[in-house]
Amino acid sequence: MTTTESAPSTEYRVIGTNPVRPDGVDKVTGRAVYGADVRLPGMLYGKVLRSPHAHALVKRVDASKALALPGVHAVLTNADFPEPLEPVMQTVRGPQPTRWDTERILAGRKVLFRGHPVAAVCATDPHVAEDAAALIEVEYEVLQAVATLDDALAPDAPILHDDGLASLVDGLFDPVDGKPSNIARQFTLGFGDLEAGFAQADIVLERQYETAMYHQGYIEPHNATAVWNRDGKVTIWTSTQGAFGIRQNVARVLNLPLGDLRVIPAEIGGGFGAKNVVYLEPIAALLSRKTGRPVQLTMNRTEVLEATGPTSGTRSWIKVGATKEGKLLAADVRLEFEAGAYPGSPVAGGARCALGPYVVPNQRVVGLDVVLNRPKTAAYRAPGAPAGEFPVESILDELAEQLDIDPMELRLRNCTALGMPRSDGAVQGNIGAREVMQAVISHPHYRSETVGADIGRGVAMGFWQNGGGESSAYAMVHADGRVTLVTGSVDIGGQRAALAMQFAEAMGIAYEDINSLVGDTDTIGFTGNTGGSRTTFATGWAVYQAAMDVREQLEQRAARIWECAADEVAYDPSDAALHGPDGKVMTFKEAARRLPGTGGMIQGQADIVSTNVGKVGACFGAHIADVHVDRETGKVTVLRYTAVQDVGKAIHPAYVEGQIQGGAVQGIGMALNEEYVYDSNGRMLNASFLDYRMPVANDLPMIDTVLVEVPNPGHPYGVRGVGEVPIIPPLGAIANAIHDAIGVRVTSLPASPRVILELLDEQAGGA
Amino acid sequence: MTTTESAPSTEYRVIGTNPVRPDGVDKVTGRAVYGADVRLPGMLYGKVLRSPHAHALVKRVDASKALALPGVHAVLTNADFPEPLEPVMQTVRGPQPTRWDTERILAGRKVLFRGHPVAAVCATDPHVAEDAAALIEVEYEVLQAVATLDDALAPDAPILHDDGLASLVDGLFDPVDGKPSNIARQFTLGFGDLEAGFAQADIVLERQYETAMYHQGYIEPHNATAVWNRDGKVTIWTSTQGAFGIRQNVARVLNLPLGDLRVIPAEIGGGFGAKNVVYLEPIAALLSRKTGRPVQLTMNRTEVLEATGPTSGTRSWIKVGATKEGKLLAADVRLEFEAGAYPGSPVAGGARCALGPYVVPNQRVVGLDVVLNRPKTAAYRAPGAPAGEFPVESILDELAEQLDIDPMELRLRNCTALGMPRSDGAVQGNIGAREVMQAVISHPHYRSETVGADIGRGVAMGFWQNGGGESSAYAMVHADGRVTLVTGSVDIGGQRAALAMQFAEAMGIAYEDINSLVGDTDTIGFTGNTGGSRTTFATGWAVYQAAMDVREQLEQRAARIWECAADEVAYDPSDAALHGPDGKVMTFKEAARRLPGTGGMIQGQADIVSTNVGKVGACFGAHIADVHVDRETGKVTVLRYTAVQDVGKAIHPAYVEGQIQGGAVQGIGMALNEEYVYDSNGRMLNASFLDYRMPVANDLPMIDTVLVEVPNPGHPYGVRGVGEVPIIPPLGAIANAIHDAIGVRVTSLPASPRVILELLDEQAGGA
Repeated sequence: MTTTESAPSTEYRVIGTNPVRPDGVDKVTGRAVYGADVRLPGMLYGKVLRSPHAHALVKRVDASKALALPGVHAVLTNADFPEPLEPVMQTVRGPQPTRWDTERILAGRKVLFRGHPVAAVCATDPHVAEDAAALIEVEYEVLQAVATLDDALAPDAPILHDDGLASLVDGLFDPVDGKPSNIARQFTLGFGDLEAGFAQADIVLERQYETAMYHQGYIEPHNATAVWNRDGKVTIWTSTQGAFGIRQNVARVLNLPLGDLRVIPAEIGGGFGAKNVVYLEPIAALLSRKTGRPVQLTMNRTEVLEATGPTSGTRSWIKVGATKEGKLLAADVRLEFEAGAYPGSPVAGGARCALGPYVVPNQRVVGLDVVLNRPKTAAYRAPGAPAGEFPVESILDELAEQLDIDPMELRLRNCTALGMPRSDGAVQGNIGAREVMQAVISHPHYRSETVGADIGRGVAMGFWQNGGGESSAYAMVHADGRVTLVTGSVDIGGQRAALAMQFAEAMGIAYEDINSLVGDTDTIGFTGNTGGSRTTFATGWAVYQAAMDVREQLEQRAARIWECAADEVAYDPSDAALHGPDGKVMTFKEAARRLPGTGGMIQGQADIVSTNVGKVGACFGAHIADVHVDRETGKVTVLRYTAVQDVGKAIHPAYVEGQIQGGAVQGIGMALNEEYVYDSNGRMLNASFLDYRMPVANDLPMIDTVLVEVPNPGHPYGVRGVGEVPIIPPLGAIANAIHDAIGVRVTSLPASPRVILELLDEQAGGA
Repeated sequence: MTTTESAPSTEYRVIGTNPVRPDGVDKVTGRAVYGADVRLPGMLYGKVLRSPHAHALVKRVDASKALALPGVHAVLTNADFPEPLEPVMQTVRGPQPTRWDTERILAGRKVLFRGHPVAAVCATDPHVAEDAAALIEVEYEVLQAVATLDDALAPDAPILHDDGLASLVDGLFDPVDGKPSNIARQFTLGFGDLEAGFAQADIVLERQYETAMYHQGYIEPHNATAVWNRDGKVTIWTSTQGAFGIRQNVARVLNLPLGDLRVIPAEIGGGFGAKNVVYLEPIAALLSRKTGRPVQLTMNRTEVLEATGPTSGTRSWIKVGATKEGKLLAADVRLEFEAGAYPGSPVAGGARCALGPYVVPNQRVVGLDVVLNRPKTAAYRAPGAPAGEFPVESILDELAEQLDIDPMELRLRNCTALGMPRSDGAVQGNIGAREVMQAVISHPHYRSETVGADIGRGVAMGFWQNGGGESSAYAMVHADGRVTLVTGSVDIGGQRAALAMQFAEAMGIAYEDINSLVGDTDTIGFTGNTGGSRTTFATGWAVYQAAMDVREQLEQRAARIWECAADEVAYDPSDAALHGPDGKVMTFKEAARRLPGTGGMIQGQADIVSTNVGKVGACFGAHIADVHVDRETGKVTVLRYTAVQDVGKAIHPAYVEGQIQGGAVQGIGMALNEEYVYDSNGRMLNASFLDYRMPVANDLPMIDTVLVEVPNPGHPYGVRGVGEVPIIPPLGAIANAIHDAIGVRVTSLPASPRVILELLDEQAGGA
């Protein structure tokens, strides 16, 4: 059931409807070309040999037996990477040393996690490549693995990055004694007088929480197909969220001019933030350079789980102080995030969002980014925020209980608003946080009673800032009044439709008259990754501007045809027509038909940086979860689930609903089911979708959604990103519901049957 | 040997150099994807069944046996075409009835030439498709074939277009009695008082000439690969000179919205005007619709020769009057061109150009477009002009002989110039006709004596108006200062290089920093076909304007960085740098590097109609041919050949030289070797490259070129099209040289050994 909490709008014709997606038929019929579907003449198939050790020095790689196998064309090691680029290129985007990336992609000196690539081979056939990979002999000097945050932070901890490269970045040196460290970064956000705040509090709570490593769990494994031409030009097909980001990163590690590298984004079977990282692309390219042939690599599921970025395992500590009326006075938060083998966990995202929904006058949020011998983490939907907000949403539930205040009412009393500061010093814009909380309070689900034993209800909020950035779009008007719309935003969630709808709205033409396409790095201007909930907003802006460009050009053309001044002509989208002097009217379709004979076809175009033209609208959501806990098995069943969210303006409500449902389910997975399970040797015990337990449709009830529409004034159609917030509240909402059901507080997620049974044992023991 | 007749220029840095072509390596290594190289998953292969009769009614097509053959997926006939589009679409470009195109592509009612497609089949394998095509049974009612112009124009001629469709176009009705006719069009150009002109003449000559049907002889046969998606979207890959033209024509016959049809131009192995016509594309598309699979069709050489457009066989009559000083007073020309099976010979091109190099105060040029049972003609390099100018160049040679004036001197006395009218009423612009004639007169080749028996020399002029039209380009500036340049012009002769050079010149950057690409109909704005010698000129204009757009945006960006007004910043291509107040300087590369952090990447873009921004520059050429005639065998050997041409400004002199040499060789083929030979049943007897005798390298001496540079003031770099003119003069020059060698006048080309021996027999008989 979807409810939309806004007055029925008559101002839009296309926005707010739910047309068919342009890529739907291709996907249903199997014609859509995903990365692994690319076929090129003479193509070879590659396979990566991966480290069986979590931490070891690579002493020797001997590929002679592999190379002797019939059908094998080449073997690749780290030594095949070109020398790092001149520093100037490294600083275009991001300061990470190139050498780290090449070591991460293909270890030469040291492996830092089980599954770390050590060599790659390509052959005429994927099975031969697999056999050949097994024939590559690698001699390791096994080192003590750093498996946990405690291991990593111990005074005598083995140091992962002990090769001098650490000096190129902040951190990795102990801030106190200056010695090499596994702390990649430590920072503090906040404002006010923490001590004074706690001193004024009637109640102070202090707790610790943990969340597990979770994988994004996209259906489609990573893949890359590359052709390295003899003239130095390289083409890569890959399933990615951002062709330009892949181009940038591949160009950096391969020392390629940007103009010589074309990245063609294939259709993508899920990314959730993790398909902005290069893994196989440079390997495929270098194997192609070695062999002169196209080379394709695809991962299997175990490779995806063991060797691509999960999100961080985290540990957090929080202390809050409040008045007895529930007014928050002070909050002290410390977030320790596992980065995996290389620096760069999403702890900053967690820190920025942890207290986001609330006004806390005195606050401090400390973030630690810690390296250890696990796969390098990657972005995962609202990166850092689920683990960053979980402790806050849990402790607020406890606070509400102790103060005997309704938990959502407690949140409402502390709700942030326009003009209030965020932890990172930014100021909230026009937001719908209050409207979301009020919608929860008045919602029938929240107003109903839970009935039955061991059944409970929890609520939690989620906040995400959303992203903006750079986007490009162009629209070609054809002589029959159809339009081809090309943008640079890879379509991971219905963007082709949502962008065409904004163009149709701006022009007053039919959605069906628009062919909406995604360009590649050679056929569209620079566009940021599809991520950070930026696309419908920022690329929507580009599309809107491109429509304005079309309208202006049509006005000029009509003025030429009518022999009047351009400012005497106005395009009116309400009737999709040009209006000139003396009541002259020319419809869009008539104008299009006249283009060939009156000065040629036109295209509208826009390259925008969204912050130059508009303003990103932050997003708030609140979830209500009813659960039943089976005291015998420890199994938690979600009985009813409602997700309320300020969506700005829902361009395509069914997709918005889908984003909310998908995000909620992933958050429920974090709360209840999913986690990386390692043995004592650093081997992942559940590296398949049979054992890595993501919730599926029959595990869950329908996720009901309530779309609250508080338009973002920084976008022509009020758009705010909607894709990330819904993954945040489930962790707190489910944990709070479990407490409501059986009286135990889950502080370490997931709340798997084992955890529940242990807590029930504790509860029984303590009783 | 190439000579350039212009002062050494120091004004250009890139223009006038000969850099490597960007597509060269791919073509040499075999990686370039020509149309037949396209491979798609599940692709089927098609084959066309063609008529063995030149003129017949199709009574019945029975495909049951073909469909029963294992591996066969579908059979297609004319009945599978959708109903014709609403008239509005038909009138977007060109008035030809859709029904004619569908009949031409796949005959339903009547076959009009041997090789006319009647059905098509597709199967899992091309050999199965070929077997299946042979199993399709077609019952014909054979009609009397119209094989020659005399047949076609006879009072009781069988009428090809007797089905009422003729009423949709001008012609095909006798202008006198209104009865159906095979004359598709008749028109008259000219001005002055013809009768008075002839009355004042001291000398009047009157002659008849003929030229054969010639094929363009491109190496690569026609091909098409199509996917018809279940959502109605269609993608076609084809080797063509113009993706947008193919899109327009396919959309028209398949009743598709332009936005739903994507045409991707493959690399092309020669076109010379003929790869703007659709043959296999709609068949591939409809077979794909029937089967749900990609379908590819390729022709073999016999199909190309028998069933794609050759140029017209022609017959002409000319009468000229002149003073005894050689001043032309009057010219009366009648050109009868075979259109082939459907209206549309290039007779208009011939008529416009016939008298082009000369001032003739009283003139009339009559053109006839005649249908007959031969393959429909297609454009061939300077369409119509070789056959249109041959009679003039021949009769002028005779006039010069009779008046005892040097033949080039005679031409110089009548040379056209700026402001003089053309036959079609247009006025000559700034042209280099005189400079070309003077360059011939002073050239060592022309000043030398021919030495030896049966050796002679001839000269002739060529004139072509050149084309303009619509082009689109965009240039993306990357952060490392490289640029990707995309245009809509299919590259048939080095356009990627010649366009990148113009962009490099406009920016002052290195040619090597530009990645020059050709877009498809969904990734670039509307761009006319690569033809009419328009591309380096018109798309060059688009590229230049795109560079100006980049420069302006860079100026604005620098102004923002320097915090000054935009008009205080100027981009100077001479040092590729922005110059601001107080001596501030920022190079292009520095500016590019600063783009990501200062407001995003930029792209320059331009959609131009060349006549709105510039002016097409007409082109003149003169060729000098020395030949030896073997009186025993009739074989003519070209001993020395020099082509002089006003090229405006040679962007890439080596390509310009290549165009001139290639054109000259094709013209020599027309003059000496090539012709369609038919038997009495309308079967082509020489439908292979073994028997259709094109001159090859060892038939010919080096074609020396002289590049006269009279810049076109209507283009920023003085470009005038160079590709077509060189095919025109060889016909006259060779015929005139033969006369100089052995004293006979060849009036019917080619001057094959048979023709030469017959003329020598006549000469001997007459002596």
